[in-house]
Amino acid sequence: MSEDAFQFKGRHLLRINDLTADEIMGLINTAHRFKEVSERDIKKVPTLRGKTVVNLFYEPSTRTRTSFEIAAKRLSADAVNVSVSTSSVSKGETFKDTILNIAAMKPDSLIVRHSCPGAALYAAKYSGCPVVNAGDGAHAHPTQALLDLMTIYESKGSFENLKVAIVGDILNSRVARSNIRALKSFGVNITVCGPPTLIPMDVGVFSVNVTHDIKEAVKGADVVMMLRVQLERMEQGFFPSLREYSENFCLTPSIVELAKDDVMVMHPGPINRGVEISSEVADGPYSVILYQVTHGVAMRMAVLYLLCGGTD
Amino acid sequence: MSEDAFQFKGRHLLRINDLTADEIMGLINTAHRFKEVSERDIKKVPTLRGKTVVNLFYEPSTRTRTSFEIAAKRLSADAVNVSVSTSSVSKGETFKDTILNIAAMKPDSLIVRHSCPGAALYAAKYSGCPVVNAGDGAHAHPTQALLDLMTIYESKGSFENLKVAIVGDILNSRVARSNIRALKSFGVNITVCGPPTLIPMDVGVFSVNVTHDIKEAVKGADVVMMLRVQLERMEQGFFPSLREYSENFCLTPSIVELAKDDVMVMHPGPINRGVEISSEVADGPYSVILYQVTHGVAMRMAVLYLLCGGTD
Amino acid sequence: MSEDAFQFKGRHLLRINDLTADEIMGLINTAHRFKEVSERDIKKVPTLRGKTVVNLFYEPSTRTRTSFEIAAKRLSADAVNVSVSTSSVSKGETFKDTILNIAAMKPDSLIVRHSCPGAALYAAKYSGCPVVNAGDGAHAHPTQALLDLMTIYESKGSFENLKVAIVGDILNSRVARSNIRALKSFGVNITVCGPPTLIPMDVGVFSVNVTHDIKEAVKGADVVMMLRVQLERMEQGFFPSLREYSENFCLTPSIVELAKDDVMVMHPGPINRGVEISSEVADGPYSVILYQVTHGVAMRMAVLYLLCGGTD
Repeated sequence: MSEDAFQFKGRHLLRINDLTADEIMGLINTAHRFKEVSERDIKKVPTLRGKTVVNLFYEPSTRTRTSFEIAAKRLSADAVNVSVSTSSVSKGETFKDTILNIAAMKPDSLIVRHSCPGAALYAAKYSGCPVVNAGDGAHAHPTQALLDLMTIYESKGSFENLKVAIVGDILNSRVARSNIRALKSFGVNITVCGPPTLIPMDVGVFSVNVTHDIKEAVKGADVVMMLRVQLERMEQGFFPSLREYSENFCLTPSIVELAKDDVMVMHPGPINRGVEISSEVADGPYSVILYQVTHGVAMRMAVLYLLCGGTD
Repeated sequence: MSEDAFQFKGRHLLRINDLTADEIMGLINTAHRFKEVSERDIKKVPTLRGKTVVNLFYEPSTRTRTSFEIAAKRLSADAVNVSVSTSSVSKGETFKDTILNIAAMKPDSLIVRHSCPGAALYAAKYSGCPVVNAGDGAHAHPTQALLDLMTIYESKGSFENLKVAIVGDILNSRVARSNIRALKSFGVNITVCGPPTLIPMDVGVFSVNVTHDIKEAVKGADVVMMLRVQLERMEQGFFPSLREYSENFCLTPSIVELAKDDVMVMHPGPINRGVEISSEVADGPYSVILYQVTHGVAMRMAVLYLLCGGTD
Repeated sequence: MSEDAFQFKGRHLLRINDLTADEIMGLINTAHRFKEVSERDIKKVPTLRGKTVVNLFYEPSTRTRTSFEIAAKRLSADAVNVSVSTSSVSKGETFKDTILNIAAMKPDSLIVRHSCPGAALYAAKYSGCPVVNAGDGAHAHPTQALLDLMTIYESKGSFENLKVAIVGDILNSRVARSNIRALKSFGVNITVCGPPTLIPMDVGVFSVNVTHDIKEAVKGADVVMMLRVQLERMEQGFFPSLREYSENFCLTPSIVELAKDDVMVMHPGPINRGVEISSEVADGPYSVILYQVTHGVAMRMAVLYLLCGGTD
């Protein structure tokens, strides 16, 4: 890293709201430099040698856990995975006690994934070390938003005058919430789209446009972010059937055509082919879904690096 | 480590009975020096570089496994986790064959947690490398006792003239059993306390005082060790209800007041707040519960270091 | 490694059919040199430092996963374990998408265990890096065959004029299939033996002798390979009872006596004592079962080393 490298002021990464636009740009620039490490023959820098990064996951998440683990290891940190099943929680110790216990083992960073909104924030009170929120219920998933912005920035070169459509289950999506916050830091024009039952009532506070028509949302968009349909929502009555959902909200080639010529199609994964996104689109020329995954490792390296005190 | 460092004579760490008081003091001193490593910026020493430490866990145990894994990694060893669920054991290979197979992969140390008393002892016959007992049924949990003694020693400076109360399910507790053995090596005065159904009939052989009254046990104590209530014991009829248990055996502030002014309150974790220990006590000034966890990593570093042949 | 070391031409290791006899000998020779690493005090070479090896396991497999993980770590690679339970697959992303996602994290090698024949082959189309098949349904398990051949070669010094008996469930065994292919590369005389329901109808294409009489199979054999009885086959009606199976096909001392004086008894593990092999034989002087496990680590080191581009 060069001597003019960005220094992160925060102690934790809990939610996008805590970051200024400058800090987001600093993270993107740092991640951009780390991206190159994963392209090398020797994919490892000694930056965090002797540091312990604990992945504390209360929800199963192969991809996010793997991304953080690979990020930690490419920085030469020791990654320790702690998976807690919900069943064991019910008869076990309190979340606070688990955090205090892990803290007593002196980790250098704690990555927390939990189904309860606010869990990472709460963990940060007791962890004694930087906490990264890897998703807390429907609340926030800041590294996802950061890697998404990195992906947009690498492709578009700027956030100015961008029009972004976010389509799907806005109500229950921590990805949507974090992305809206992050994109709004840069004054991006956002349209959210989904069935009325899956749009938050108070969506107005975010200064976004709202539509229930995917064509209207995608029309003229620079970026289309599709959200994953969570099948359990259907059982809860938020929408009547997968078939009806996909007839109205699946991103197909004919809908993509309504967007700008250089539109980017994004999805946080895992994708439901034929439900919220057609295979032609997911595998097509506008899709940047796999770049998002690659940027995920780079961004998590940047986050771990900066939170563990790195500046150069 | 200095050139006069302690050298451990045993090949394995299976139970406290195998250790002399001198060896326990040697382990405490070695652990004391390793404790400092976890306070460093670079929490790693190259001591066990190129060694393979296998964590073979037949019982779920996030905290003990994590403690051993972090200890191994801070010594630069490669830690390999092997979790075996009881269900797969029933149709799978024998325990002996599992040990022989792991041994054939040439590990340098094998950490064994198993629900059967004697499992670690049996593993040591076939492992071809040092075995550390990380808990075998109700039999022994020697690293827990060692970290407990380390915690007492760091605070009290000596084991002389100490009065220790151990309260809870003495019958089924490997923690109690190992601690009684270890403390008795130093002639410590021990009082065990619990409902009559949870005190072993042959407790006399340990030369401990017995009472069913927690006030009597705690009165004048230097150290109070609380044991975890295992809820399945209630279902087995050892005591009638959690509420009745906690009315009689929960460590509350008013009971702690009966102890010495500088009493240490200990618990091996995970704690059941409001069952065997009140939150005021667990989080209060006398509690050393989290120091026990910190010492756990240090003691496991010491054990791995000494068993893998380290002397300097 | 010396400068005349073998260089592996293939990009992946998917099945034995893709290998020439020369390549198999090259792998055996490379593994032979790596075997020595696991005998050292410092069991580690820096060969794959900075490489990421992902173990993607769709079937539970403690032993194979552990063998690959230890192999990767002894080469100084970073090993990342990704276990996917079948239940999560049903509602999750497609196998192709999982592979594409892992590929986007830029691993250097991907180890795949899956219950579907062809899964590793399919993974290799999308992985962007070398794939090692760690067992795909009843299709292939090439590293098992390679370690078996290594074990035979280290003991016999050559494959010439060898007579090998393979006994058990030939039909459903990827181990049998891969071993037959590998041994046939060297013109080894093979006799397969099992109940008629567990011998493939088209076994003739492999140019092997077939018998349903274990005595006939073992008579004069240099090598007896026993296969594991999979209990679920009994429930599917392939054979009437374990007792009847073992009366007819269990390798006992009296049957071993029919083989050559220096016979080697092999088993891929885990063994069912008293079902397909008696304890006297498994633990007896002719058994090389645990050498197979030791050679497994060495062979997987060789495979990872050669696939990641090593030549010297």
